[in-house]
Amino acid sequence: MIPSIEWVDNKVKMIDQTVLPYELKFLEFDNYRDVAKSITEMNIRGAPAIGAAAAMGMALATIEYRDLPKEEFLDKMDDAAKHMKNARPTASNLFWAVNKIMNIVKTSSGNPKEISKEVIEEAELIAQEDVNVNKSIGKHGAEILEDRDTVLTHCNAGSLATVQYGTALAPVRAAIEQGKHISVIADETRPRLQGARLTAYECHYDKIPVNVIADNSAGLLMRLGKVDKVIVGTDRVSSDAVFNKIGTYHVALAAK
Amino acid sequence: MIPSIEWVDNKVKMIDQTVLPYELKFLEFDNYRDVAKSITEMNIRGAPAIGAAAAMGMALATIEYRDLPKEEFLDKMDDAAKHMKNARPTASNLFWAVNKIMNIVKTSSGNPKEISKEVIEEAELIAQEDVNVNKSIGKHGAEILEDRDTVLTHCNAGSLATVQYGTALAPVRAAIEQGKHISVIADETRPRLQGARLTAYECHYDKIPVNVIADNSAGLLMRLGKVDKVIVGTDRVSSDAVFNKIGTYHVALAAK
Repeated sequence: MIPSIEWVDNKVKMIDQTVLPYELKFLEFDNYRDVAKSITEMNIRGAPAIGAAAAMGMALATIEYRDLPKEEFLDKMDDAAKHMKNARPTASNLFWAVNKIMNIVKTSSGNPKEISKEVIEEAELIAQEDVNVNKSIGKHGAEILEDRDTVLTHCNAGSLATVQYGTALAPVRAAIEQGKHISVIADETRPRLQGARLTAYECHYDKIPVNVIADNSAGLLMRLGKVDKVIVGTDRVSSDAVFNKIGTYHVALAAK
Repeated sequence: MIPSIEWVDNKVKMIDQTVLPYELKFLEFDNYRDVAKSITEMNIRGAPAIGAAAAMGMALATIEYRDLPKEEFLDKMDDAAKHMKNARPTASNLFWAVNKIMNIVKTSSGNPKEISKEVIEEAELIAQEDVNVNKSIGKHGAEILEDRDTVLTHCNAGSLATVQYGTALAPVRAAIEQGKHISVIADETRPRLQGARLTAYECHYDKIPVNVIADNSAGLLMRLGKVDKVIVGTDRVSSDAVFNKIGTYHVALAAK
């Protein structure tokens, strides 16, 4: 399991998810505009991973502008925040991360260089916290998984969708670490095939047994008793709804 | 609307559905083995169309063997029936049509030449009856369609799935003939994309407004009120179940 995104020597390093599963290629950015573009073009995707990318992108912006007078620095950071938020206007984690960074930028009493240091630390913290949260999801979720369970999942909510470890796949990883035999059925997830391309890739990479199916088959497999549990990711949860990749609704109806 | 299959000058002429929508190509067969192969390879598909193809294929067999003594003719026809049934062992209409033809072959008091004539007539009748049945489905089904309705359909149960006119698409055609404005949303229908390739093609060909969606989107579009009616085809109906293309179950759950 490789981190999907990392802060390395004041640069952002990420797996290029658009060329998976054919090639494991890494991108390196030293400019927040390139990070924003990578979010738009889905080199990186997955709600938590986008949040981390946005925070790291903003950290790059502080490095770019840290030699300016504070007022100019603040203006430039405002522009960077707007630019970053435009990268994928439906990604809540992106807004959350950018706002979190901008809160530091605006409330810090330090000079731009000091602010930049604080922001870099915050961006790294956001990434680390994501891994911690995922491991916690894994620990709790593994309790509902029994030995020899088959888990159906939709889209990719694995390690690649997060900084590392995954959300929907975290219970599978944790259960396997506990010695349980768990296999995965991955919906291919039309139209962009994140299940076929990404979930299958990362399961295969980490030796988790995985089968890819046409999304259409999920209901029949459930009816035939070939699915024990369904675990999906979520882009956002509100008090009355779950927002996630198109098709999650069909999966939920069939699992009901 | 072009017939998907026709009996022309003692040959079977069919649209090659494997190259649609890129090319409108016709295949002509004078040998039942080639017709069986065309069913296996899905040059022709759709329950009613397969039934007509099987009957016409058996008619070709009678032409091939009609100069043999009656006993030999019957043996050869038995072989042809077995061969034809193997073309797609899950297609009920294929068995129905072959059995219907073999009933004539076995019960006729005529000589092989006379039997061949009877079988050819029967095959043409099966094709004609399919069109009549479809038009009747259209007439009844059109009653539930209102002006400006949008109809979602899965796979292809249109003219191409039948001899002509279609089953699930028949009510759409009939309602349009009555002057109603009806548009179609076609599930792309993974894994073989009959909706994207065939339903979209024939709607476009006949100037019926059509949009293709990823199968995953059907539920959301229903929730958003963008679908007024759902009409799907069926391979077979038993007293307690409907058998149809993978994914029909998801559509049904969402439409419920």
